[in-house]
Amino acid sequence: MTITITAFDRSPDGGKGLARDTRIRWALEETGQPYDVRLVPRDEMKEPAHLRRNPFGQIPTYEEGELVLFESGAIVLHIASHHAGLLPDDANARARAITWMFAALNSVEPSILEIFIARILERDQPWATDRLPVVLDRVRERLGLLSDRLGDADWLDGAFSAGDLMMVSVLLRARPSGVLDEFPNLAAYVARGEARPAYQRAFAAQLAVNTRP
Amino acid sequence: MTITITAFDRSPDGGKGLARDTRIRWALEETGQPYDVRLVPRDEMKEPAHLRRNPFGQIPTYEEGELVLFESGAIVLHIASHHAGLLPDDANARARAITWMFAALNSVEPSILEIFIARILERDQPWATDRLPVVLDRVRERLGLLSDRLGDADWLDGAFSAGDLMMVSVLLRARPSGVLDEFPNLAAYVARGEARPAYQRAFAAQLAVNTRP
Repeated sequence: MTITITAFDRSPDGGKGLARDTRIRWALEETGQPYDVRLVPRDEMKEPAHLRRNPFGQIPTYEEGELVLFESGAIVLHIASHHAGLLPDDANARARAITWMFAALNSVEPSILEIFIARILERDQPWATDRLPVVLDRVRERLGLLSDRLGDADWLDGAFSAGDLMMVSVLLRARPSGVLDEFPNLAAYVARGEARPAYQRAFAAQLAVNTRP
Repeated sequence: MTITITAFDRSPDGGKGLARDTRIRWALEETGQPYDVRLVPRDEMKEPAHLRRNPFGQIPTYEEGELVLFESGAIVLHIASHHAGLLPDDANARARAITWMFAALNSVEPSILEIFIARILERDQPWATDRLPVVLDRVRERLGLLSDRLGDADWLDGAFSAGDLMMVSVLLRARPSGVLDEFPNLAAYVARGEARPAYQRAFAAQLAVNTRP
């Protein structure tokens, strides 16, 4: 069955790979799955046709036959559960890899998204300038703990897994603020993720969409 | 093998059931699994012994033999994957239930946690009063979309699942602000979750910890 994902018709980041379709493309590339892409214009995100796919009116979504999924975490886990390459065979190691996916999405991404909220959504609010350093300090605290755990390992728990795919994807969103580079081992970890051929293909595919005439 | 979870020695909410150990207790109760609890004093959260269990120094964690997990989402998914009662048998329905778990944790909880950030963490900041309504409006937007999807159904996708367990747990955190009650179908959905005997047992267990002499 054909896999079809949705992506922004034009990503707000102009093709930097920070939109959440990139992590799905990456998972599909790591597992060797071909896929089609349906581009959704931003003014159609909250229209009934797209809300049927994703009740929050966001991208990405995933369609395969009768199955319709949303949430990048659920989609990456679905891909990783059905195709080899992103989860270890050992049951305990598998549970730990999935734990890192949730950690990326629930313990790391929310604090990083606060940077976006402060810099973009609340940019015109009177507190915008004074609040940003407070937000960045919370990100630093979280990234400091992650940096301590990673140490000088290549990946978070043994071989590269869906947990690393998600953590690298989330950390990339902290890079424009400069805060990622304050943690050299995390910056190197992200660079290792970006160097993977599957990531390169995923990045190129989203860039092609966002730089087309 | 014995299951041991961690919880706050004294929860910051005084036993309202909003700390994340409650959702783990609930999943264990729904699936009929006995468990032990290790209480972690708040000044030991960032000590090496607890950081080995959870690199972010938070509760809950889950230990079973050699396996150590953190992240409430990963723990509930682990419990739901190994014991009957929280995930449907049909593969597509199962994937959709897991999608709702991720939706609760990545699309709903972050906006609700912003209320906590605004009201507690940034309470003494000069922007505290002016910013809270902006935060609440973002929560309303998200809950409005969720309310539209739920409609007059009892649960998000057929029978009660781990997706509902997580969504109810997350929505409970919006109730103290009053914003949950602005969406009567969501308030009734949460009340249905709270009425489940397994939730009642989980709530009572955390309350006993937090009200002991």
